[in-house]
Amino acid sequence: MAERTGESTLNNNAGPGKVFLVGAGPGDPGLITVKGLECLRTADAVVFDRLASPRLLAEARSDAELYDAGKGRDDHRMTQTEINELLVDLGERGLTVCRLKGGDPFVFGRGGEEALDLAAAGVPWEVVPGISSTIAAPAYAGIPVTQRGMSTSLTIVTGSEDPNKPDSTINWDALAGLSGTLVFVMGWKGMNDIVVALTSRGVSSERPAALIQWGTTAKQKVVTGPIGEIVTRGIEAGIGAPVALVIGEVAGLRDAMAWFDTRPLFGKRILVTRARSQASKLVKQLEDLGAEVLEYPTIEIVPVRDPAPLDEALRNISKYDWMMFTSSNAVRGITERMKAVGID
Amino acid sequence: MAERTGESTLNNNAGPGKVFLVGAGPGDPGLITVKGLECLRTADAVVFDRLASPRLLAEARSDAELYDAGKGRDDHRMTQTEINELLVDLGERGLTVCRLKGGDPFVFGRGGEEALDLAAAGVPWEVVPGISSTIAAPAYAGIPVTQRGMSTSLTIVTGSEDPNKPDSTINWDALAGLSGTLVFVMGWKGMNDIVVALTSRGVSSERPAALIQWGTTAKQKVVTGPIGEIVTRGIEAGIGAPVALVIGEVAGLRDAMAWFDTRPLFGKRILVTRARSQASKLVKQLEDLGAEVLEYPTIEIVPVRDPAPLDEALRNISKYDWMMFTSSNAVRGITERMKAVGID
Repeated sequence: MAERTGESTLNNNAGPGKVFLVGAGPGDPGLITVKGLECLRTADAVVFDRLASPRLLAEARSDAELYDAGKGRDDHRMTQTEINELLVDLGERGLTVCRLKGGDPFVFGRGGEEALDLAAAGVPWEVVPGISSTIAAPAYAGIPVTQRGMSTSLTIVTGSEDPNKPDSTINWDALAGLSGTLVFVMGWKGMNDIVVALTSRGVSSERPAALIQWGTTAKQKVVTGPIGEIVTRGIEAGIGAPVALVIGEVAGLRDAMAWFDTRPLFGKRILVTRARSQASKLVKQLEDLGAEVLEYPTIEIVPVRDPAPLDEALRNISKYDWMMFTSSNAVRGITERMKAVGID
Repeated sequence: MAERTGESTLNNNAGPGKVFLVGAGPGDPGLITVKGLECLRTADAVVFDRLASPRLLAEARSDAELYDAGKGRDDHRMTQTEINELLVDLGERGLTVCRLKGGDPFVFGRGGEEALDLAAAGVPWEVVPGISSTIAAPAYAGIPVTQRGMSTSLTIVTGSEDPNKPDSTINWDALAGLSGTLVFVMGWKGMNDIVVALTSRGVSSERPAALIQWGTTAKQKVVTGPIGEIVTRGIEAGIGAPVALVIGEVAGLRDAMAWFDTRPLFGKRILVTRARSQASKLVKQLEDLGAEVLEYPTIEIVPVRDPAPLDEALRNISKYDWMMFTSSNAVRGITERMKAVGID
């Protein structure tokens, strides 16, 4: 806040910079917030993690500085300290910065560490919350994380911790005693340890559970079953990271409530080669049916380069018996030339 | 899905209807998702709860059917059963319906009950997740719900339940044993019972806590303190519903991380009376400084109805010694007339 109140500042530029910690949402690019998208579109610089939807990056200004912080699980292109320093540096240069993070910046997103460093450096910052995959991935799997009369609490746990470690900060006895929904986001390798930690502490091995990989995207894969069998079923189905484990009665609602991955074209990747100006309605319809649509315009509709032969033919139109049009674009092109040469 | 696959259907209209369960977010109207806003803007019918931001409703089509389900805490204009029946009815009429709910439809939003009834009736439906106030209200109070090395779990509890009831479905012993962040959303009256239920089960009365009323809005009010004193402090500060109680070490981060309610114009309501065409930049700047801006254009800039006297004066401009302009709009208007009468 130093820049605002006129106190001492590190910023030598005309205006103070500002860093927006923006949640990109869980994967479906439509699940970014209106405010988050506006930040992304107007920012001078964008610092992005590995995102479920790279399509979002196309929304950045063409002259924006782009920095790949590359925070995949095993792909740390920059350390957290380097990222924090970069954000402070960009802010002190007077730039408006969009720090684009998967999910929500404050739900296991390490946004709090970035905010603390920005605040300590006197760089103004704001947070723009995002849809957390811990809630949206179950929703897209047909599993409401709470349900009246069934689950009145939701506990979200990050699982980079080994449940067998004596110094684990997670109280597994307490987790096992909760009657509400549990959601674990973590590496696929640790899932069996979690199941054992819970069932050995009194959770029934019959309790409903679900594994959701790549939730909210066209690659979404869901496996359900009793917690005692869920890991085996996941292995059989070829489940891998990134995955969320949902435990609780609500997991049983998927049978009645699946809506996303049951759509007729779900899992189909469709290449639309129409000219972009004509593709949007088709793209929308295909997406509504569940398809993943890639727009790749292979044709572009342009006027003929030398209209003279066509104009000549049009002027002598009364000499022809037939005119054949091979597409609606041809009709449109001919109509334009007819207007141009003054034929009704 | 019956309508899609050509099986039997209750729908006599041309196309099948569809009901979108849309999360409106926590209050800040910019926190609705891009997909949610698109649903709202295109829907044939909108069924809305009491929303933190009535401004969102202005986004509905002017010819959309609007239904006020009025789900405030003590203001049930329609019962949940009536709402479910309305949604099924609108869907069966072939309409595209936006069911606009505060926060996220599946986080204590009763969206699961609506989805089950829609599915049972064969009406196609989808969910569009929203930002939950349980995560965003703390974020706007400068409290990250998780923080590395401090809190690796988040538990959200709805508190319409009396903790003293013997048949409570909430395991208070388990809740008290969790080391991570707890967020309670509930009536203000029950807050003291929650604090007693936790501290009597071993939670230190010194554990940091925060009360957040009207989170993410211009009315946001935040009180922090040790859990043993938080209710008293809340009463002193005049806190009331709707309120969230955050318990955990992260509540102590607000001192360093408050950003929203510390902005220079926060809590100020500013009426902008400029013509709408000129107001947007001013509105944006005021909002960036934390003000709540109401646009109320009292003036409209229009050309003079009879320009003849002005044109005459302009043609004789060389006879004048002084020209005085009372606003930039006057300069613009005169320049236009000078062009019109051919004066450089």
